[in-house]
Amino acid sequence: MRTVEEKVMFIDEEKSADDRVMYYGKGDVFVFRTYATPLTNITNVPESDFTGRENVIFGMNIQVSFRGEKFLPSFTEGDNSMIIATDSMKNFILAHAAKYEGATMEGFLQFVAERFLDKYDHIEAVELSSDEIPYDTVKIHDGSSIVESDLVYNCSRNEYSTASVEVTRTNEGYKLTKQTGGISDLHLIKVSGSSFYGYIQDEYTQLPETNDRPLFIFLDLSWIYQDMRDGTGDNPERYVAAEQVRDIAVTVFHELYNNSIQHLINEIGLRVLQRFPQLDQIRFKTNNRTWEPVIQDIEGSKGQVHTEPRPPYGFQGFTVTRKDLENKGNK
Amino acid sequence: MRTVEEKVMFIDEEKSADDRVMYYGKGDVFVFRTYATPLTNITNVPESDFTGRENVIFGMNIQVSFRGEKFLPSFTEGDNSMIIATDSMKNFILAHAAKYEGATMEGFLQFVAERFLDKYDHIEAVELSSDEIPYDTVKIHDGSSIVESDLVYNCSRNEYSTASVEVTRTNEGYKLTKQTGGISDLHLIKVSGSSFYGYIQDEYTQLPETNDRPLFIFLDLSWIYQDMRDGTGDNPERYVAAEQVRDIAVTVFHELYNNSIQHLINEIGLRVLQRFPQLDQIRFKTNNRTWEPVIQDIEGSKGQVHTEPRPPYGFQGFTVTRKDLENKGNK
Amino acid sequence: MRTVEEKVMFIDEEKSADDRVMYYGKGDVFVFRTYATPLTNITNVPESDFTGRENVIFGMNIQVSFRGEKFLPSFTEGDNSMIIATDSMKNFILAHAAKYEGATMEGFLQFVAERFLDKYDHIEAVELSSDEIPYDTVKIHDGSSIVESDLVYNCSRNEYSTASVEVTRTNEGYKLTKQTGGISDLHLIKVSGSSFYGYIQDEYTQLPETNDRPLFIFLDLSWIYQDMRDGTGDNPERYVAAEQVRDIAVTVFHELYNNSIQHLINEIGLRVLQRFPQLDQIRFKTNNRTWEPVIQDIEGSKGQVHTEPRPPYGFQGFTVTRKDLENKGNK
Amino acid sequence: MRTVEEKVMFIDEEKSADDRVMYYGKGDVFVFRTYATPLTNITNVPESDFTGRENVIFGMNIQVSFRGEKFLPSFTEGDNSMIIATDSMKNFILAHAAKYEGATMEGFLQFVAERFLDKYDHIEAVELSSDEIPYDTVKIHDGSSIVESDLVYNCSRNEYSTASVEVTRTNEGYKLTKQTGGISDLHLIKVSGSSFYGYIQDEYTQLPETNDRPLFIFLDLSWIYQDMRDGTGDNPERYVAAEQVRDIAVTVFHELYNNSIQHLINEIGLRVLQRFPQLDQIRFKTNNRTWEPVIQDIEGSKGQVHTEPRPPYGFQGFTVTRKDLENKGNK
Repeated sequence: MRTVEEKVMFIDEEKSADDRVMYYGKGDVFVFRTYATPLTNITNVPESDFTGRENVIFGMNIQVSFRGEKFLPSFTEGDNSMIIATDSMKNFILAHAAKYEGATMEGFLQFVAERFLDKYDHIEAVELSSDEIPYDTVKIHDGSSIVESDLVYNCSRNEYSTASVEVTRTNEGYKLTKQTGGISDLHLIKVSGSSFYGYIQDEYTQLPETNDRPLFIFLDLSWIYQDMRDGTGDNPERYVAAEQVRDIAVTVFHELYNNSIQHLINEIGLRVLQRFPQLDQIRFKTNNRTWEPVIQDIEGSKGQVHTEPRPPYGFQGFTVTRKDLENKGNK
Repeated sequence: MRTVEEKVMFIDEEKSADDRVMYYGKGDVFVFRTYATPLTNITNVPESDFTGRENVIFGMNIQVSFRGEKFLPSFTEGDNSMIIATDSMKNFILAHAAKYEGATMEGFLQFVAERFLDKYDHIEAVELSSDEIPYDTVKIHDGSSIVESDLVYNCSRNEYSTASVEVTRTNEGYKLTKQTGGISDLHLIKVSGSSFYGYIQDEYTQLPETNDRPLFIFLDLSWIYQDMRDGTGDNPERYVAAEQVRDIAVTVFHELYNNSIQHLINEIGLRVLQRFPQLDQIRFKTNNRTWEPVIQDIEGSKGQVHTEPRPPYGFQGFTVTRKDLENKGNK
Repeated sequence: MRTVEEKVMFIDEEKSADDRVMYYGKGDVFVFRTYATPLTNITNVPESDFTGRENVIFGMNIQVSFRGEKFLPSFTEGDNSMIIATDSMKNFILAHAAKYEGATMEGFLQFVAERFLDKYDHIEAVELSSDEIPYDTVKIHDGSSIVESDLVYNCSRNEYSTASVEVTRTNEGYKLTKQTGGISDLHLIKVSGSSFYGYIQDEYTQLPETNDRPLFIFLDLSWIYQDMRDGTGDNPERYVAAEQVRDIAVTVFHELYNNSIQHLINEIGLRVLQRFPQLDQIRFKTNNRTWEPVIQDIEGSKGQVHTEPRPPYGFQGFTVTRKDLENKGNK
Repeated sequence: MRTVEEKVMFIDEEKSADDRVMYYGKGDVFVFRTYATPLTNITNVPESDFTGRENVIFGMNIQVSFRGEKFLPSFTEGDNSMIIATDSMKNFILAHAAKYEGATMEGFLQFVAERFLDKYDHIEAVELSSDEIPYDTVKIHDGSSIVESDLVYNCSRNEYSTASVEVTRTNEGYKLTKQTGGISDLHLIKVSGSSFYGYIQDEYTQLPETNDRPLFIFLDLSWIYQDMRDGTGDNPERYVAAEQVRDIAVTVFHELYNNSIQHLINEIGLRVLQRFPQLDQIRFKTNNRTWEPVIQDIEGSKGQVHTEPRPPYGFQGFTVTRKDLENKGNK
């Protein structure tokens, strides 16, 4: 889970009129709405059997921030007359969790952003981002057979979906100036079928080349729609579920004899864009957490022994665009 | 995941001959053994469809410590001649991960403990404990249908099994003086069907009574066999898998209209002991992480809005014994 | 900072009458009392210039737990009539933070434990433990010179003092059955003057011997008084301040050309017992976090380059007793 | 300490020629250089008695990333021929820690960035950022009096200095395209002399107004020089030490009866820019962690009782510029 400090960085580069960073807001607003509207009628993709979300527990860790020149005197004069207390922001978000009738985190964020602009007309822009707090279903014996419980859930600390929106007040009304969906903290290992060789060899090179390593990666993915309005899920056929993207990523990892993480993520990105024509681009932030080999050959077994790697960790950042997919298709 | 510091506490109370705490060892020994022997042929229980572990990735975070009077001069004289470097302990464990032919963490710990006593005859007792590093299977599309991958796994940060052993050198040979299995960091919520009322009301009471709260608990469970040798899994019909205990706990939580965490865990303990006659007792360490209610009634919905509780957190410690089960049966 | 889970382990081994673990309580009770009574008139030791604590901010993270057979029906019958809600325990502790007139964490814990036994006569024993939340003084310019601020403080995440008490109801009144002071999470490095050689060499040995390594250790120390009542600080001349023990530990580390952590902590323990005749024993839990060497010789410099070690980490547990000091003196 | 993931976000928005994010690198490169050149001859400011750094331990957690179009085939073709392994990046940085003759983290980062561009001519830009790993001096008794040890240090988990540089290859040679110094994770409380009132009151307002609250803030500050070359410390009279900025921040916090965090940080920023004419701007990221009041009045004492706040947390982002200082002066 990203901390407040991490998420603040997203907005760090936003500048107000005279090129000054100025925002304030609330982080770690935990919202647990029960029995929200289920997500149904999404479009299937071959790599995934995911068909929707029950939303019995709709759990989110939300961050909100406001921007606007009217907030400047709170800094320069200590004048709080234009300040909405961040405690009130939290109360506003929680109150609107009861009012939201949609089925997605992206939709909820946009709903709240617009209501903030309705309520406080001196705000110029509202940014909201959120990490899902996932609650997995569990299997129980109901007296006759083993079924999914509709009462007990397991709060998961594994991968979770993410969302962000920025809504800006303009002369033509509210404008959706930013909208992303995503999935973070996927920790995947492929035990065989990954290589890393052919890189530059010089006096700083100590890493041995390998044709077959167990590749362990941390993945964060996020995506931008061609038409941002598709991201809300109001039209579920046009919505991309994080679970579907995860299943595509896992399938491509399974299929591809990869030469590096760079190689792998480009192929995942192309496949996601192929499956979802409504997306414009997909962005990756990845980490290499490959185990350290200890014993490579065990007599009578195809097993090996590895241990935890030391820091530091390699990382990658990359965007795959629709143009990349078209170029690939033309080859 | 418990840290080294936490796990050290288990051995803290152990005393050497003249009533002195004295031990040393290695913590955070991460072992990833691939293609270990699968666990099969366990005995089924009604609450669980768990049938075994593939052990394609057998991941453990191990702690080892040694005790013995021969180590005293390393403290009092700075004389290292009887010291096995803790780096060597790590190498020993990793080397034996290639040699272990069994299918359980409990079995591996006992195997290593005995090999340490074989190798270094001045050690009086070896204690090993371990947390599983679980790697979940993932579903992929294999070209024709959706199946479990045999190459790609998802490293889980959710609940994990635990094990500990202590093997002591005696005049009659090695003695298994401690042996536990367990499961830790289960984070379960029941959205409806839990109450808490009837407790003492006085000037320090602020908590309102409730007949129906969403109860969120953190559970750690561990168990002791009547015959400790059953814990290794060498005879899998007598082995208790953490996944089975988890499924029983979840089913009892689903079934029971509970009056408190205390009430719940007693019922879980009785059910586990009923299903597994080979167990002597089960111990609970639990935490209450119940959400804070914000909006209890939403028009036209059975949903509610809650938020994260503040610290502090209530906790419980309790042991359910076979005698408790017998007493219950006699009522 | 230890988590609730860690601290619960201290009480894990406590058994009720029929050999069952049974307790419940509250962890992470954060108490910030401002302008508590200052600690003054402690007895000086040569290694330390510490003379007392202002206690402008008296910050504590407290854990409390209750034991008693009267709590059994809450487990076995779901009967809460003897239950003090853990929320009420928190309120009780906070209320008593306003009433405490002493100057130490040890004293506060004992005060609260006794008040709990006064208030609820079905409790058999109360255990409280606490970690200090230290707020360091900071230097400011007051218009004429640089002085310590009496308004602004820096919340420290470095070493902190610890305390625990157990008070038991007996036929002769309340009995102090456990009492410790301590200091935890000291992270000390000595850049030169530590060795590690002469240990067992065999096929598992990879660690090279060294006559001069930069030794980096994590230390937790705790102590027990000969007369436990000296631990409250009510008679400050008999009180041992964690800051004094820290200064002794640092001085001994500086002075001693040590052969190992084992060697070092024995010498620290002896010195502490020599300076404080009111102590009965001192217990160590230590960790080795020594850097990994990269470049040992830099032309024209006595400097070196090191990097972070990988896990695993070596650890030690050891008690030094007053008898050890006497034996040493007789040599 | 920021994680790799957090720090990666800094570079997230950087785009390559065709508007694609593309970078790769290494995070958590821990460098401990002993006996580096001391920092001396800095310019004093009234608020601080800081005069320099011994640099006996020069500890850093570094992140490096490379950008350049030549890396594109590693993604699109799985062609590693232009790849410098991230393990080699780490080795390069460690090797250059032995060669650096300056006294600051900012200077070291720039030195390494330029050496990377020297060595690998297909890199277009190198970005390096670093968090200091601070090792505080400790006091010991040297046989005659209490002095600072020159052998033993205390690894601090409190505030630490930060630095970042980006060096870009251009037709006119290497260009310093980014350069910051900073200090992070200052956790300061002012026990009296802070207010918060006069903000918007509506149906979402629950927070009571206050004329005197204990204000607890987390602060991260960073600064940009008017001439970026002043940031290296090669000309120490022009260098701004994080410790000096900390002391100014603390003094302003002490002096100012503040109306909000916004109000406070604007005043800190103005004072820092006044003291250091070589700075162009100072940026703040702050968090409100103010305690929750429990007991406001204690008879016979000016003390109070507070407890830990729940999440969520308010935050602020703000830049104070030299123009702000000039405007202030003209009023």
